Order: sequence, then C-alpha cells, then structure tokens
Amino acid sequence: MDRRRIITIGREYGSGGRQIGEMVAEKLGLAFYDRSIIRLSARETGFTPEYIEEVEESITSSFLFNLAVGEGRSTTVNLPNETRLFIEQSRVIREIADKEACVIVGRCADYVLKDRTDCFHIFIYSDIQHKLERAVRSYGLAPAEAPEALRKKDKQRARYYNRYTDRTWGDPHNFHLSLHSDYIGIDRTVELICELARNE
Amino acid sequence: MDRRRIITIGREYGSGGRQIGEMVAEKLGLAFYDRSIIRLSARETGFTPEYIEEVEESITSSFLFNLAVGEGRSTTVNLPNETRLFIEQSRVIREIADKEACVIVGRCADYVLKDRTDCFHIFIYSDIQHKLERAVRSYGLAPAEAPEALRKKDKQRARYYNRYTDRTWGDPHNFHLSLHSDYIGIDRTVELICELARNE
Repeated sequence: MDRRRIITIGREYGSGGRQIGEMVAEKLGLAFYDRSIIRLSARETGFTPEYIEEVEESITSSFLFNLAVGEGRSTTVNLPNETRLFIEQSRVIREIADKEACVIVGRCADYVLKDRTDCFHIFIYSDIQHKLERAVRSYGLAPAEAPEALRKKDKQRARYYNRYTDRTWGDPHNFHLSLHSDYIGIDRTVELICELARNE
Repeated sequence: MDRRRIITIGREYGSGGRQIGEMVAEKLGLAFYDRSIIRLSARETGFTPEYIEEVEESITSSFLFNLAVGEGRSTTVNLPNETRLFIEQSRVIREIADKEACVIVGRCADYVLKDRTDCFHIFIYSDIQHKLERAVRSYGLAPAEAPEALRKKDKQRARYYNRYTDRTWGDPHNFHLSLHSDYIGIDRTVELICELARNE
C-alpha cells in the first residue's frame, strides 16, 4: 500500500463513519486516529481536552485558514485559541501522516493532507432515518433528543470544516469516494474500502 | 437483482461516466439508456432530437419541477417547450423503469425515480486534468477548446438538474455512491458497481 497508505474519513453524525474507520484500520493493520489527535495536540498547547471541545463547539463565523496555516508555529501567537488549536491539530495530523500508514477520522484531515499523493479520502453519510436509529441504538441518545442532536452535530462539523478550509463540507470533490453506509451496508463498506486500499 | 435492478448514473463531462454505464450494462446484461431516451421522448412530442438539444442547452433560470410533474400530460399544455420536454422525458424514464432492469445515464434519472426502492443511484466525477485528457483523447476535442467545453457542459448539466429538481447537481445525498473515476480507475469502478448491484 503506497498511493493509498493514509485513509482519511469524513462522516456525518450517525452514519457509522467512525466505526467503519476503526474496522478498516483493524482489517488492514493500520493505526487509527480521531479524538486521540486532540489529546496529542492538547499536550502540546497546554489546553485540556475538555477546553478544546468547548472552543471547537463555539466556532460560529468563517475564517481564512490559508492565511495562517503553513507558516510555522510562530505566526499563531496572536490568533484566537480556536484557530491555534486547529493549526496545532493540523500539524499533528501532518506529523502522523509522515510517520505511519493510518486511518484518520474527522479533523478536516482530507484538507490538511490534500497535497499528499498517498491518501485515499472517503466521506461516509446516510439517510436521516438510519442515522437517527444509530444515534439511539449505538450512541445511547434519547429518541426525543436524537433529531436535534443530529442536526446540531452535523452543523458543527460543517461549520468547523467550512471555517478552516476553502471548501464545502461533504462536497464529493474533496473525496475519492462518498458512500451511503446504510444502503451499501457497514460490513460491505469496510470490505470495499479495504479492497480499494489494497488494489491500488 | 431486485433492490438494485435499476442503476442510474449522473456524471461530470469527461469523467467517463457514460462509458462506465455502458460497461456496467453490458457486464450485467441490462438495457442501457441515455440519448435514446431523448429520441423515444421526441417521437411522442413531435420535436426533433436536434431541437430538443437546442432547447435544453438554452435553459437558464430555476424552475419548480414539483408543481408540474406527476399530474399527467394534460397539465403540460400551457408550459414552455423545454418544460414539456422534461416532463415527457421523465414519463419515458418511469415507463422504462417499470418495464425492465436497466442502466440510465443522465436526464435527472436519480430524481425522476427517487421514490422507487429498486434503484442504485451513482454519481461519477473526476479531477480537471483527467477530464481534459479524456475530452481530448476520447471525445476528440481540440486541446485549446477543451477547458471551455468542459466548463460549459457541466454548467449546462447543473443548470438542467437544478432547474427541474429541488436538489443540487452532484450533491452526494442524491446518490448511494459517488466515485472519482480516475482515482479508482474505470475498470475497477465498473467491477465495483457490478459487485454492489449483484450483492445487494
């Protein structure tokens, strides 16, 4: 595996994208990253993981990522904490990608690693009914709260992505493959990603 | 093949989507439709295929498809020709879907058949470089003219789709699978669609 040694997965809340990422990593014997990136990053910035989550959830306006990123850590001194966090996390993602073949879920990894030629970028989505069922069944949400939680989570993800990239969250052009996880099936989706990652 | 007996393919110009559709149809022994739908439709409306193409290329503004379609042919009497054409073509697509398992490329077929549960909706796209190369190599475009032709063709497709549906052209949610044909490879894409259509 060379041209597809790093698999990034963007996903809608409730689509099973994280689970698919873990299963792919296990099946291919790759390292798996998602929240752990936050923790790695947090150690370097001195923020607690709880504070980081809070800051990320409060992002509300648009932001030109390109102005700040890529110019080293010294430029981050006068930036708001949420922006510094994104820059730190992006740096961690790039270090991970340099270091090892892996699966990275979320964190705009498709964008952060867009200039690498050894990445396979995937987006996982589903329909509202299946996402609601999964949110209740697997994530333990109360049925009455699930619709609002779903809406809010995806809005946060879109806001985060759209703020820090010059792209639109979920646009298929950001990815090599976009899959409806419940139409294709979780197991079949995992197999398919593994097959494509192997037969490059 | 039941839940996926009809395969619709939306595609960007130069992505190889039509070729992929033909190869899938041949491999699965299914009927294949694209321009032939225009001709079928044309016979019924009395328009020539050339006139139909001309009308479709001139579509410029948005339109609420839902207001007109689905209420029978009698409602089309006072509508502009371009709208009557779309309604006629949609009726033909629905008749085809009732009649036989098939592959249908373009013509908003994913939208026209959205309420059926036996369709597998696919979108094929690629990057600009591969699309330009294909347009020159396979469609015979002059290299100097290819960039403008590509831009114009996709603009037409988006305009046509956005005008007659309440959706956005290329939005992955309209499909079960969106594929970068040149990253995955044409032959592998065909195999993959056939596998997924068979192993429903």
